[in-house]
Amino acid sequence: METHDPLAVHPDNALVWHDGRLHLLDQRYLPDNVGFFACDSAAAVAQAIASMVVRGAPAIGIAAAYGVVLAARDAYEYRGPDWRRHIDADLERLAASRPTAVNLFWAIKRMRRTMDGLVGGDPAADLLAEAKAIHAEDRAANHAMGALGAGLIESPTSVITHCNAGALATGGYGTALGVIRSAHAAGLIRRVYADETRPWMQGSRLTAWELHQARIPVTLQVEGAAAGLMATGEIGWVIVGSDRIAANGDVANKIGTYGLAVLARHHGVRFMVAAPTSTIDLGVANGAGIPIEERAEIEVLSFAGRVLAPLGVSARNPVFDVTPAALVDALVTERGVVLAPDAEKIRALMGSSSF
Amino acid sequence: METHDPLAVHPDNALVWHDGRLHLLDQRYLPDNVGFFACDSAAAVAQAIASMVVRGAPAIGIAAAYGVVLAARDAYEYRGPDWRRHIDADLERLAASRPTAVNLFWAIKRMRRTMDGLVGGDPAADLLAEAKAIHAEDRAANHAMGALGAGLIESPTSVITHCNAGALATGGYGTALGVIRSAHAAGLIRRVYADETRPWMQGSRLTAWELHQARIPVTLQVEGAAAGLMATGEIGWVIVGSDRIAANGDVANKIGTYGLAVLARHHGVRFMVAAPTSTIDLGVANGAGIPIEERAEIEVLSFAGRVLAPLGVSARNPVFDVTPAALVDALVTERGVVLAPDAEKIRALMGSSSF
Repeated sequence: METHDPLAVHPDNALVWHDGRLHLLDQRYLPDNVGFFACDSAAAVAQAIASMVVRGAPAIGIAAAYGVVLAARDAYEYRGPDWRRHIDADLERLAASRPTAVNLFWAIKRMRRTMDGLVGGDPAADLLAEAKAIHAEDRAANHAMGALGAGLIESPTSVITHCNAGALATGGYGTALGVIRSAHAAGLIRRVYADETRPWMQGSRLTAWELHQARIPVTLQVEGAAAGLMATGEIGWVIVGSDRIAANGDVANKIGTYGLAVLARHHGVRFMVAAPTSTIDLGVANGAGIPIEERAEIEVLSFAGRVLAPLGVSARNPVFDVTPAALVDALVTERGVVLAPDAEKIRALMGSSSF
Repeated sequence: METHDPLAVHPDNALVWHDGRLHLLDQRYLPDNVGFFACDSAAAVAQAIASMVVRGAPAIGIAAAYGVVLAARDAYEYRGPDWRRHIDADLERLAASRPTAVNLFWAIKRMRRTMDGLVGGDPAADLLAEAKAIHAEDRAANHAMGALGAGLIESPTSVITHCNAGALATGGYGTALGVIRSAHAAGLIRRVYADETRPWMQGSRLTAWELHQARIPVTLQVEGAAAGLMATGEIGWVIVGSDRIAANGDVANKIGTYGLAVLARHHGVRFMVAAPTSTIDLGVANGAGIPIEERAEIEVLSFAGRVLAPLGVSARNPVFDVTPAALVDALVTERGVVLAPDAEKIRALMGSSSF
């Protein structure tokens, strides 16, 4: 996005390195309250990830990459040439911020590899260049996926999306919403039905905001309404992102995704996952190996400051679920489309560059 | 429920005829704010139904029956012997309060039949006796269904329920929650997972309240978490109520029920519908004939007074969906259990007394 204001409020401008700090468009209160959360330390970035100032697997990875820059800058400032020996605590803090999105670990690993290649002097400029490369590559990957995913949609149709896999969840443009933006530009999207996505309401607050700004027709619905909508025959595709994809193609994504995939199969609706290869984790054989974050019960028991349930009642709050590869019709990555993904096809996609 | 206070606050005491008025435990703000909404006219009852002071198909029917009493009392007070000719507007107002729950029309029809049989004088006492009979029969039906439904559960298991089909939704004890109460008393329920049930949160506000008071272990979850829970193998049954059942066994119930039924079948979880025969509508051949209420968009777009989505974004808000009979493993009524319901079995169940 071209703008004269580096901190212009726009979904495609949610992660901004400016004036030596990482500015994150605070996603906890969008769209009511718009503001940036400025991080000038790795600890601040870790806190921002843990508290969901920034969310979405690719965006978390990019934020962590900038977090490594801040960690190295601080270490060099206080320790000088010895900086490498004082950075591990910050990197561990970043890695511990959330467990499921593999892009976080991928980005930290990539930044560490860059660190390892540095010789002498202040590491900040080189690491910043690498973080910016990760950021730019993610945005480019989304545009590539947009074109590839749109190419799978044969005729104009309406689609369902879940949670927010948009510009806000990525370096810009979005994964699932990138596909939707490209498909809409090609005249292939009649309407997007966005699940509101309890308990954090990413659909109502973030996806509706993004699509409305992009002038793409969007209608919100409660999660429970998806099945009945599919039964009308109006929906051609469900299009979602992912937080981690196992080596066999099992997909971890926002809680509710797995149910949508079962419903899609039942109704003959096709199911597309759009995710960059940085989301693919060849280190876990299948979905059972993906750690699923459980967040606090109060996120389910209350909303907007109002406690809903009687005192003493418990809640379960798994944040993600796993969709078996067998329910995925198409996995769209920046390197290409994998139809009916399985371990062999994913190995072929990733080639030797499993990094 | 035995108590010295006619307006004691308890789920089994949600509809109370007292002091010549119908008192409804106001379900819009439970469990935060507890209070009765007193109706001294049919118009007030109609308003209470439309605005969801009282909800749940059997409870709506009972409330409407008392509403007919109030209509007749007013008509007799102002018109004397001519009262019959001045009651139609009130009855139409009651019938127009909500479209889907057939118990509403069933109760009005039954009260009208009683009216037709009255000769001379003040009709209030006879009609009140009939409304109280409807109320008492509903409660008795729920206890009968509780025993029958519990009899289907072969060994201790956990269950999922959706929305609130409890004492609050009925004349007392509940339909789906009646089955759960009876099964729990028999040691057959390990835990109840209650879907929070957007947008009105009947699960969090009402079902959790009822079950917690009954000391039955209850855990809330967002609707999106049901599929992943079923995949664990922990769930034996999904148990729900109904707002209208077509002649072929198709079941209209709270939005989200149909999706649960598809997910249950996919996971080998059994699906039970508990509903009195007053919910069966032999006048509609199948689910396509059941009118599905659409409520205001703002119920989805906002919560607890906070607007969630950006201005200009629309929402769809169908309140019910239709589960095809083929996905129902057991229909439990007070007259008996129908396994794998179809038109023939339902005709046999209803016999000649389709009323």
